[in-house]
Amino acid sequence: MANEHFSKGAAWIEGDIVPISEAKISVLDWGLTRSDITYDVVHVWEGAFFRLEDYLDRFHASIHSLRLDIAQSREDIAQILHQMVAASGLTEAYVSMVASRGVPSIPGSRDPRHCSNHFYAWAVPFVWVIKPEVAKRGARLRVSDNTLRISPQSVDPRVKNYHWGDMTKGLFEALDAGYDSAVLVDETGHITEGPGFNIFAISSGKLLTPKSGVLEGITRQTVMEICQEMDMDVEVRAVSLAEILDAEEVFLSTTGGGVTPVTRINNKIFGNDSPGTLTKKISASYWALHKDEKYSQKIKY
Amino acid sequence: MANEHFSKGAAWIEGDIVPISEAKISVLDWGLTRSDITYDVVHVWEGAFFRLEDYLDRFHASIHSLRLDIAQSREDIAQILHQMVAASGLTEAYVSMVASRGVPSIPGSRDPRHCSNHFYAWAVPFVWVIKPEVAKRGARLRVSDNTLRISPQSVDPRVKNYHWGDMTKGLFEALDAGYDSAVLVDETGHITEGPGFNIFAISSGKLLTPKSGVLEGITRQTVMEICQEMDMDVEVRAVSLAEILDAEEVFLSTTGGGVTPVTRINNKIFGNDSPGTLTKKISASYWALHKDEKYSQKIKY
Repeated sequence: MANEHFSKGAAWIEGDIVPISEAKISVLDWGLTRSDITYDVVHVWEGAFFRLEDYLDRFHASIHSLRLDIAQSREDIAQILHQMVAASGLTEAYVSMVASRGVPSIPGSRDPRHCSNHFYAWAVPFVWVIKPEVAKRGARLRVSDNTLRISPQSVDPRVKNYHWGDMTKGLFEALDAGYDSAVLVDETGHITEGPGFNIFAISSGKLLTPKSGVLEGITRQTVMEICQEMDMDVEVRAVSLAEILDAEEVFLSTTGGGVTPVTRINNKIFGNDSPGTLTKKISASYWALHKDEKYSQKIKY
Repeated sequence: MANEHFSKGAAWIEGDIVPISEAKISVLDWGLTRSDITYDVVHVWEGAFFRLEDYLDRFHASIHSLRLDIAQSREDIAQILHQMVAASGLTEAYVSMVASRGVPSIPGSRDPRHCSNHFYAWAVPFVWVIKPEVAKRGARLRVSDNTLRISPQSVDPRVKNYHWGDMTKGLFEALDAGYDSAVLVDETGHITEGPGFNIFAISSGKLLTPKSGVLEGITRQTVMEICQEMDMDVEVRAVSLAEILDAEEVFLSTTGGGVTPVTRINNKIFGNDSPGTLTKKISASYWALHKDEKYSQKIKY
């Protein structure tokens, strides 16, 4: 069923599966003009979705939180994602499901309750948030001293969203200074997250990660389960920048690449500038879990 | 030159003027997926742009601030807007100019410096942020006690942006409670702005409006100029919610409708529930200025 036209990706939009280059939304859609939209990203590895049910759970919680109402059921969405990825022929893919406010049925209305909400999805070749060659030496992150993470009192980071202005600003600053990516702190100086990833520290053998002000990542959840399995203490709480800088190992977690070592933050170098031993062990467990039928849904290409 | 197909609006996109229904952007555009985009809105009234040069100034400052680089010069954009509105045939229009990050030229890149930035524009029939029939009795606003305005330390509100998650949440709460729109406060309890408007109070004959944490609106600027002309004292500074509630008159300013009376905020009623005398005078001056050639650019339909 795979098609040459789908080599750059496929989308499901308005009921049709189309090449990704044809997937477009109106410039008037409030998903764009008000960023009134939520999404989720699940990955496909070796021809199977990883933890699809968990991503669908979160996506539906996000839809509910934004008071969006789409025509597709959870089962419809699962079926659409399977068919779309099968059509694309991609065996390693970055798969996005999106629910948008749409446009008001009454032209000129400013009332979100007048909008026709809609669902679409797309799949592209697997995206590495940190490129494999960079991950190998360890990512170098810069904590922005200039831009704070958008507060949860303004926009709930647990509802996966496209409000990335703070991330983009932090990212530009980091890239300009020669770093690979950025991490943002909140107004109290606690660590939050970076563009597309959660962050973890290993300190005195304990796993630390921020509790609030962050996306509750599925990869983050997987990491915590792996560490519990390894009999490590897992502390989910406010984590200061100082604690992160004092840690033995630091890594990030993302659907776009899994468990990725961090070897530098600002001018601090971790573990002699090499990926940490426990980090490598957790990363290996993460990829091994992809073989576990409990988490894996094979795609019928 | 006006065309039946353009009755709902026209857009300029990728070099062509098209009916608004055909104006779409890729679902992969970072203008959507990262809200990495800026825009401005100028209005057309009785066949002429109002203060177009001021809107172009602000749009270019926003483009510069986000480090976007588009192919069109300021003169190109002015010409595009004139041609597009002429083609639409609309004599009263809400005209949006947009600059977006675009997509990376290297597929899968997460580096904003790899993106091809682009410009587009659209015009639709005039949009009233507060409908005329509501403006006539005075708008009823609810100050959210639940959602704070996104901090300027995260996203600069002076760079006109689509990060509206906070506004949408406040708006839902307000509409649910029977109000017409919402106003948000910042983390210190000071008034900021609402979805699409700045806010003003008249207190002891003085004009008050928030200085920071808000869009520096062109209509806001026009109001301040009108009030200075009327020999009113104009104070641009932090304004607490209590000060607003204690004011004699309150109004909002927006490109989408000009100077609009506010008669209720929360359970406070202003001026016997009728639009204020000074507010009506300022509004009349605002519309009169549209006849002033200094501010007006006629469109050649």
